[in-house]
Amino acid sequence: MFIETKFMKLGVEGAPGQEVRQKNAATDLSLRGEPLKGKRVDFSHGDVDAHKPTPGSFELFSAGVAVGGAQAYTEYRGDGDIRRELAPKLAAFTGKSVDPEDGLIITPGTQGALFLAVAATVTRGDKVAIVQPDYFANRKIVEFFEAEIMPVRLDYEGATDERAGIDLDQLESAFRAGARAFLFSNPNNPAGVVYSADEIAAIALLAKRYEATVIVDQLYSRLVYPGVHYSHLRAEAIDADNVVTIMGPSKLESLSGYRLGVAFGSKEVIARMEKLQAIVSLRAAGYSQAVLRCWFNEEPAWFKNRISQHLLIRDDLIAVLLDIDGVVVRSPQAGSYFFPKLPKMSVSAADFVRILRLQAGVIVTPGSEFSPHTGNSVRLNFSQDRDAAVEAIMRFGSLIERYR
Amino acid sequence: MFIETKFMKLGVEGAPGQEVRQKNAATDLSLRGEPLKGKRVDFSHGDVDAHKPTPGSFELFSAGVAVGGAQAYTEYRGDGDIRRELAPKLAAFTGKSVDPEDGLIITPGTQGALFLAVAATVTRGDKVAIVQPDYFANRKIVEFFEAEIMPVRLDYEGATDERAGIDLDQLESAFRAGARAFLFSNPNNPAGVVYSADEIAAIALLAKRYEATVIVDQLYSRLVYPGVHYSHLRAEAIDADNVVTIMGPSKLESLSGYRLGVAFGSKEVIARMEKLQAIVSLRAAGYSQAVLRCWFNEEPAWFKNRISQHLLIRDDLIAVLLDIDGVVVRSPQAGSYFFPKLPKMSVSAADFVRILRLQAGVIVTPGSEFSPHTGNSVRLNFSQDRDAAVEAIMRFGSLIERYR
Repeated sequence: MFIETKFMKLGVEGAPGQEVRQKNAATDLSLRGEPLKGKRVDFSHGDVDAHKPTPGSFELFSAGVAVGGAQAYTEYRGDGDIRRELAPKLAAFTGKSVDPEDGLIITPGTQGALFLAVAATVTRGDKVAIVQPDYFANRKIVEFFEAEIMPVRLDYEGATDERAGIDLDQLESAFRAGARAFLFSNPNNPAGVVYSADEIAAIALLAKRYEATVIVDQLYSRLVYPGVHYSHLRAEAIDADNVVTIMGPSKLESLSGYRLGVAFGSKEVIARMEKLQAIVSLRAAGYSQAVLRCWFNEEPAWFKNRISQHLLIRDDLIAVLLDIDGVVVRSPQAGSYFFPKLPKMSVSAADFVRILRLQAGVIVTPGSEFSPHTGNSVRLNFSQDRDAAVEAIMRFGSLIERYR
Repeated sequence: MFIETKFMKLGVEGAPGQEVRQKNAATDLSLRGEPLKGKRVDFSHGDVDAHKPTPGSFELFSAGVAVGGAQAYTEYRGDGDIRRELAPKLAAFTGKSVDPEDGLIITPGTQGALFLAVAATVTRGDKVAIVQPDYFANRKIVEFFEAEIMPVRLDYEGATDERAGIDLDQLESAFRAGARAFLFSNPNNPAGVVYSADEIAAIALLAKRYEATVIVDQLYSRLVYPGVHYSHLRAEAIDADNVVTIMGPSKLESLSGYRLGVAFGSKEVIARMEKLQAIVSLRAAGYSQAVLRCWFNEEPAWFKNRISQHLLIRDDLIAVLLDIDGVVVRSPQAGSYFFPKLPKMSVSAADFVRILRLQAGVIVTPGSEFSPHTGNSVRLNFSQDRDAAVEAIMRFGSLIERYR
């Protein structure tokens, strides 16, 4: 394969945060009416100004700088002391022990963990089961390594509140056809659904039966709304050595600016991840690693408040969304994403995403990033300023009316 | 290829900074005599406690945190304002314009830039010319992508002070045999030699003639000792679009703890690098990027002083090294590495590296990391506390006597 071909599929044009690179975007659109006034809201990611980083995080960074060389140059898998501090907290959260020496790696963001975990598990020609829809990088990483994607449908619209809606028969077929890995996010990004205890148990059983490695991205697993039961695959797994769990303090905690993630579980995969990290980026930024000391160490009141703030925003916005004629949306059980399906309009969904930005100052991520079957949906991260977000969703509704 | 096979060659055991993971290392060694007393010196990397980060760097980081969301979430290729601030400085330094919009990317460390640049240039089966010896990750990245290495010898021992010693005939043969890329560090890591103007002009000419892309790692190009002329390939290149230059503020500037690097030049390669960065790590840590504002902006007196400090340490240590019977070493023209060849001893070079750590508290990087032909050399980063380093090199000499 030529290098040009290899990069053809790796587009970033529709990726969140890249809108600034779209030049002269309006010339080919037939815009209707005047732009709508209001505060610009970027729903492509959370607003860490509206929801500030964990109190004390900057002080921990400063202390890391003061430590000097020992904090700047850590093992590739991250500072040993910090790993030993973190392991029991991750174990308590996920319900299964974590080995700080051989079973845990600190990475540059959750994205770094995901890339390394996939690259350490599958190679060219391998089959990999991937949920549709799911986080867009899953597909792109697998394609970059020339592995073969085996799609597994998630019926997030049709499933009841007790299930995420994974098609377990399709997962088993993928394993039977030789998929050596299964990769999914829980809660699902973009749909915001949480896999039920039964679904997680079934995934664990199938992975065991077919000796597959499961990589589970639990980035939003701390942001679960009241009444929802969250099951950790690693606690359920019959063979925990076949599971790699990925998390990071970037979402609920608003610590994205430090670029921190972790992967834990299978020692074999983590050893390979470290080997690869040595040539990909050496390590997560040394001083940033010190910030991990505040993770799972937050004041309970602060933590509780952060969840209830998101619950309020979710409920405010869902009410506005459901009021727009023809929009179909399920209220998320966890995380901070809405994934509404747009009604039929006179413009394509792709053009509507551009129109939203140009005429309403509303930035969303096109659904086509998450699955070939969700081109008519858009993803919105509602971790935003509450009032500004409500107004932005009202403008979103107005433009749907205008282009209907 | 199985994933296990793919990772077999990707060892990190001998890599700098990983010594802490060597367990019960002494049991298979026949140690002679007692440990030597003295302050432990880790020559595997520079000591950022002895040579502090650029004044003002932490304040810039703090200001970045204060900016908030806009600094946490930048374009994947890095913050636009910072790129626009940096581009003219990089252009002035390298003697050729830099396009801040399409010709520059900010990466998590120079390691990040190197990985992305290689991955964006070559793929499975492609031939890549690589200098021997050179930075160990060069070989590992190329092997990871299943590309074929075409070695190009660097006669750093035999060459005069005016040349680095590259075998240009071998480089041309590699290009003639189909190498589509050439990857090298200048100054050379580990040998500390600088490519002459003639060598750089010849490389540019050959790359043009055979339409090859050149990736040049100039990490140490700001730390050049008096009397040495440094030539920038991108200024010499007849076709600058075929050159990617990599730099970062981690060495002379001691800013390693922030993990920052840049790559600039070929727009085509940089566009691919950004696509890949989007799935590898998203971006260099947002707040860290703010630290780049002090780069190429240092007080001239501070900058001059930093170079003269390293010159003094170099000359002190080289005198001690040359005093050890049988050690062959060339005084570096730039950077902070010695690459001495060890005399014949009763233990293997690999064991001697372990003995040095256990009995002398002296950590060095084995020469086998840099080339299959330099197993009898070791690399020492002399960016250290001057007195501690002199004593450590004396212990290094004592152990050579003990194991002769």
